[in-house]
Amino acid sequence: MTQWTLAARAAKMNPSVIREILKVTERPGIISFAGGLPSPKTFPVAEFEAACAAVLKDDPAGALQYAASEGYGPLREMVAHDLGRQAAAAGTPWKVDPAQVMITTGSQQGLDLVAKILIDAGSRVLVESPTYLGAVMAFMPMEPEVVSVENDANGVDIADLKAKAAGARFLYCLPNFQNPTGRTMSEAGRSALSAAAQATGLPIMEDNPYGDLWFDTPPPAPLTARNPDGGIYLGSFSKVLAPGLRMGFIVAPKAVFPKLLQAKQAADLHSPGFNQRLITQVMQGGFLDRHVPTIRALYKAQRDAMLQALSHNFPQGEADDSLTWNTPAGGMFLWARLPKGMNAVDLLPLAVDQGVAFVPGAPFYAAHGDPRTLRLSFVTPSVDEIHRGVAALAKALDVYRHSLAKA
Amino acid sequence: MTQWTLAARAAKMNPSVIREILKVTERPGIISFAGGLPSPKTFPVAEFEAACAAVLKDDPAGALQYAASEGYGPLREMVAHDLGRQAAAAGTPWKVDPAQVMITTGSQQGLDLVAKILIDAGSRVLVESPTYLGAVMAFMPMEPEVVSVENDANGVDIADLKAKAAGARFLYCLPNFQNPTGRTMSEAGRSALSAAAQATGLPIMEDNPYGDLWFDTPPPAPLTARNPDGGIYLGSFSKVLAPGLRMGFIVAPKAVFPKLLQAKQAADLHSPGFNQRLITQVMQGGFLDRHVPTIRALYKAQRDAMLQALSHNFPQGEADDSLTWNTPAGGMFLWARLPKGMNAVDLLPLAVDQGVAFVPGAPFYAAHGDPRTLRLSFVTPSVDEIHRGVAALAKALDVYRHSLAKA
Repeated sequence: MTQWTLAARAAKMNPSVIREILKVTERPGIISFAGGLPSPKTFPVAEFEAACAAVLKDDPAGALQYAASEGYGPLREMVAHDLGRQAAAAGTPWKVDPAQVMITTGSQQGLDLVAKILIDAGSRVLVESPTYLGAVMAFMPMEPEVVSVENDANGVDIADLKAKAAGARFLYCLPNFQNPTGRTMSEAGRSALSAAAQATGLPIMEDNPYGDLWFDTPPPAPLTARNPDGGIYLGSFSKVLAPGLRMGFIVAPKAVFPKLLQAKQAADLHSPGFNQRLITQVMQGGFLDRHVPTIRALYKAQRDAMLQALSHNFPQGEADDSLTWNTPAGGMFLWARLPKGMNAVDLLPLAVDQGVAFVPGAPFYAAHGDPRTLRLSFVTPSVDEIHRGVAALAKALDVYRHSLAKA
Repeated sequence: MTQWTLAARAAKMNPSVIREILKVTERPGIISFAGGLPSPKTFPVAEFEAACAAVLKDDPAGALQYAASEGYGPLREMVAHDLGRQAAAAGTPWKVDPAQVMITTGSQQGLDLVAKILIDAGSRVLVESPTYLGAVMAFMPMEPEVVSVENDANGVDIADLKAKAAGARFLYCLPNFQNPTGRTMSEAGRSALSAAAQATGLPIMEDNPYGDLWFDTPPPAPLTARNPDGGIYLGSFSKVLAPGLRMGFIVAPKAVFPKLLQAKQAADLHSPGFNQRLITQVMQGGFLDRHVPTIRALYKAQRDAMLQALSHNFPQGEADDSLTWNTPAGGMFLWARLPKGMNAVDLLPLAVDQGVAFVPGAPFYAAHGDPRTLRLSFVTPSVDEIHRGVAALAKALDVYRHSLAKA
């Protein structure tokens, strides 16, 4: 009888709570505000078709052969150039050396690689409150102690951060249109956070999958641009081109790049060279400058529809008696909060009965999850579905309210 | 000043010794027997072109969207079916359930995922002697004690295995046309190993990237087919289609599949769905049954050229006075051994001076590397280059021999 002995870390690994929750929502006809999926309308299919043909015609042997672990040179150069250009436009020059850019198999892999080289069992890792659950899941196999830092109106609560910074391996944060809350760290918040991190010596791991998806004005410059030697920056092509190619990148300082590269080589040798060339080919000639505005316009219209539907269906009274929500300035998600005494996990099956799904917010907190919170994605459903879905949510809330009143 | 503190495991991670060695060989005009690169002549470029067009036409949204961590259903079914068919043809029925198949980002990722869920710091892991270096590099971040098991004519030395099996987390082995030696485990060797593993409860991690590349007869049935609940099987599309898509797979028993899946989700969410569909599309209608024989024929002709060139350039005397080599029955590599008193690392720069490169064998051993060994790949250079390269190697050996005689 074979003796399979699992590593201790395997006990720290769990199925995604959210995936488990979502199983109840997998019914035909459900309008889903639950997923984190980009709208397929934004996938540049014709451009990918042309890129496939061009890449396989120009250098099939190069595209299909083993390649360097760092990634495809021209793509690393594009990434470095674009980051520098965007940071300069946001008022903080950032000279990114292509040698500091590594292409990863989605930005999720960046989380895994950083965890491998920076987290020992028991290491303290700081996260926002709430935070991206997929990051915590990437960190857990390395057995950290994940500690939440409070948030204030500008972003991370600096006093709380300073109280918790000593000995922490890094702060993980998502400053732009965060998953799950849709909130954005202000310029003042970034400036204060960067100063506090430098004062305490705390490395920052900045995750920015949504930063390009701003609706009215670009977000303030990245944290990493303010102190490049003190941060690791993670980026993604999933939201501006397509997630199904699994293409992301890391920008890392010299202090950690070589170890990240060794971790990358051990993890999957390199990310698919074919996909790296497709992305490079599609991006040539400033394609994103033309394409991303169309995504922004689409998502902004859908956010507006959701805001309008929420206002229409949920009249505002006292905060504790009403559903409340924020107004995300970009990205894919809106964060809402139920009236006092309600629990989003209990609401979910009632919502599914009415034909709409969302994700409860509590699992996104490393500790003390707020059971009243929920995440609403506005990018996958159409405007019409958004209106119908929010109306269904209002009905579910009524049912829930009545059931609570009876109990 | 930012305080970057590396995890203890980062100290166990090192640049590939072989990549470092190969840097000296990166000169234009060098004939390289060093790389482990499939011949680009074998990449089915036209089929990939057609598959790209078909996949993007038939279901672009599906191909470009986020997808299940397990992998694309039709590909998992194809893998399960093909493994079952091959094992049955080799005389050992193996019913592979598609639910036990997980698609990975190259088989290298399979090594990383298995290491994560089965290795604690200090866990003993058994490997062949020598073994695939990339596997050891994937294991090292989890801080195992890697222990070599001796080999005999049939494969793993069973007595040595039994002496070392107690408490080991698994035996990693590569039974077909092994990297680096090109050797193949015999039917008797597999039968004995499988029995010994079952008797001692030792899990087997069977890596089979080269198994389809047999020259005259298919290799014996996989170890995992003999005891599916006792083994994890790793496969790859890199050698039969193309490495640049980074597509591999794991077949794992129920005892470990769920944890492997959680590790996969945390590592990169899923392997590129686009690439999974390309592979599926290309493989439809039995393409590999027509394509793989052409790879076998090409590599066999190149192996024959190398054997012929070796015989021509290296007359055989006493084993300790002559270069000796094996006759691989498939795969990509041939294993050679220098005369007594010589060291392949010292020979390498002399060979490069003559215009030929190879990989010294010592780094492939977990312990007590044999400094006289070297790995010669016969798949990337042409037949003409093989003849010229082996002649150059003979010249280098003469120079080396004279320098030793003088010293």
